[in-house]
Amino acid sequence: MPEYRQDPLTGRVVIVAEERAARPHQFDIADKPYQGICPFCEGNESLTPDETAVFRRADSEPNSPGWTVRVIPNKYPAVVSGEMPINFLNNSFMHTVGKADGIGVHEVIIDTPRHVLSIAELTPAEIAGMLAMYRLRLQALRADARWAYVQIFKNVGAAAGASLPHSHSQLVAIPFLPPSLFQMLCRADDHIHRHKNCFWCKHLQSEIQSGERIVEETEHFAVLCPFVSRFAGEIEIYPKHHEAGYDQLDVVLLDELAGLFRHTIMRLEKAVFWMKDSLAYNIVLNTEPFRFEREGTKVDISSAFHWHFSILPSLARAAGFEWGTGLHINPISPEQAAKRLQDADREPPTVFRPNRG
Amino acid sequence: MPEYRQDPLTGRVVIVAEERAARPHQFDIADKPYQGICPFCEGNESLTPDETAVFRRADSEPNSPGWTVRVIPNKYPAVVSGEMPINFLNNSFMHTVGKADGIGVHEVIIDTPRHVLSIAELTPAEIAGMLAMYRLRLQALRADARWAYVQIFKNVGAAAGASLPHSHSQLVAIPFLPPSLFQMLCRADDHIHRHKNCFWCKHLQSEIQSGERIVEETEHFAVLCPFVSRFAGEIEIYPKHHEAGYDQLDVVLLDELAGLFRHTIMRLEKAVFWMKDSLAYNIVLNTEPFRFEREGTKVDISSAFHWHFSILPSLARAAGFEWGTGLHINPISPEQAAKRLQDADREPPTVFRPNRG
Repeated sequence: MPEYRQDPLTGRVVIVAEERAARPHQFDIADKPYQGICPFCEGNESLTPDETAVFRRADSEPNSPGWTVRVIPNKYPAVVSGEMPINFLNNSFMHTVGKADGIGVHEVIIDTPRHVLSIAELTPAEIAGMLAMYRLRLQALRADARWAYVQIFKNVGAAAGASLPHSHSQLVAIPFLPPSLFQMLCRADDHIHRHKNCFWCKHLQSEIQSGERIVEETEHFAVLCPFVSRFAGEIEIYPKHHEAGYDQLDVVLLDELAGLFRHTIMRLEKAVFWMKDSLAYNIVLNTEPFRFEREGTKVDISSAFHWHFSILPSLARAAGFEWGTGLHINPISPEQAAKRLQDADREPPTVFRPNRG
Repeated sequence: MPEYRQDPLTGRVVIVAEERAARPHQFDIADKPYQGICPFCEGNESLTPDETAVFRRADSEPNSPGWTVRVIPNKYPAVVSGEMPINFLNNSFMHTVGKADGIGVHEVIIDTPRHVLSIAELTPAEIAGMLAMYRLRLQALRADARWAYVQIFKNVGAAAGASLPHSHSQLVAIPFLPPSLFQMLCRADDHIHRHKNCFWCKHLQSEIQSGERIVEETEHFAVLCPFVSRFAGEIEIYPKHHEAGYDQLDVVLLDELAGLFRHTIMRLEKAVFWMKDSLAYNIVLNTEPFRFEREGTKVDISSAFHWHFSILPSLARAAGFEWGTGLHINPISPEQAAKRLQDADREPPTVFRPNRG
């Protein structure tokens, strides 16, 4: 059984999951091309656990070919299903010392049946399918009272922590709020009480007005390099309208978001000024938690949070200074990065392979 | 001029330092052996900026051969010398939105004139010299009223963020407290008020009693794997006696600490269970800040903090889940890691080269 452990002074939470150590890596240490049998490809469904959710043709059988997006339990999970420990019931976990059973959900979302490595190689319809599945899984997990927060993320390329090259996303549901998210929500809640508006709505408006860090805008979404970018080329994608939970997104907007998502990754792949011959990055979906209690009182966060995607290129590795201080050193200003990402669109199309995987 | 930027909701601080982008990397992307001229070797002093501190033979000239430990300004600094901005004067920086000039000190401490790559290849006397220089630089920087905190750290191997293989350490002095350190100090200060003792002294005592995570003990120091280890094989080295600032360490204990330090790295290099053919890690010195104000009131932290080294092996990379939640997944429990590090001592000596650099 994995274990949550919390340090009382730093508030830091770690998941000790010895099952993870058995995880095979198809990327070897030198990032050589992958040669083996891919468990995520159509036809190889028997190599994975049974699917928990899927988009598939009506005439196809579960766990067989005929799908477009497939969700399976992670074979080497960081957290596992189980009874909710009593100390999670009121979110008090992060105020107490010690440890708790590592219960949760850890799933893999296989974006496509085809063995493609980059989002830019997915068709717009495939990306829309992936984004629709994120939405459905969030809705399903919101209905389970055990979970307080769901993190959906995507590691592309070995340098970004991916262990399999076939394009996929991951989902982890946990029964408490990560301490850093709890703190951020407290500040967002304070902001609402003082200013009567969503911090992000206001922030987005002023970013669009200045334009200095905007990469692209569509009718309902905006892409920008955040003012406090930790990483060179860090990108965020926001809905322009106020919306706390990604699972509340209107389905009719999925195609617009998918097109923008794909375009943004293509810009990133073309703007290789900070990369060598490989591209690696993480995508993180920041969405409202399912519950948020502050000093024992439930808080309505639907007006305080504003969902967004973060895209974090893995150019530099976090090193001693970053681990020691929590501060990041970014050698390319977000203003420069936004400009180069804009310009990238004017360059001829190039196909980059993430980490030659 | 580099720039500090802070995000008001997360509290996150980033240093935007475009000068850093010009930094040459002697480790190429495939971590091939290093072939060029090393600016840190004895005889190549003209390739570096002038030394700011040094241990050298009395009959030798500055910036010439004859030294044992040499401190130079970082040629590609993250922060630069300058006037202290007004908003740093009362440590209020982290409570305000926005940005400030990136003033500070960024130095390289060259551990040895010899081109060796690992601490385990340094002689005990060389390590003692390196540890003595850490102490002297902290004392010197404490005397400058501009600096609130000094981070000393060491990146070993390209996978840990090192750009030059020759054994060296780095030092960054900044005019404010990192937000995560500020929070930790508040909790440590609360602990003192409630319990009238140092949190770490008490913690260390109970770790030594249980022994479950202790790797080694000497008369004045203890080595352990922390209960909330973020990384597989994470190690901490503590003085057993209460001491807040590393620069207060009695010089007569430097040899004992140096021997233990070297022995610990040798254990880590031998306990390769989590590595492939290369070893990379970060070492971080956690020491008391030079000032700490809480709601405008100066706090005496000499009883609340307890200096220690953290050694963070770079087995897994931080990926989407870690960046999104701030939580870490550790596939090897600290209890297992402590046991394997203990056992490593019984294996025959092996020489590992960090990242084949």
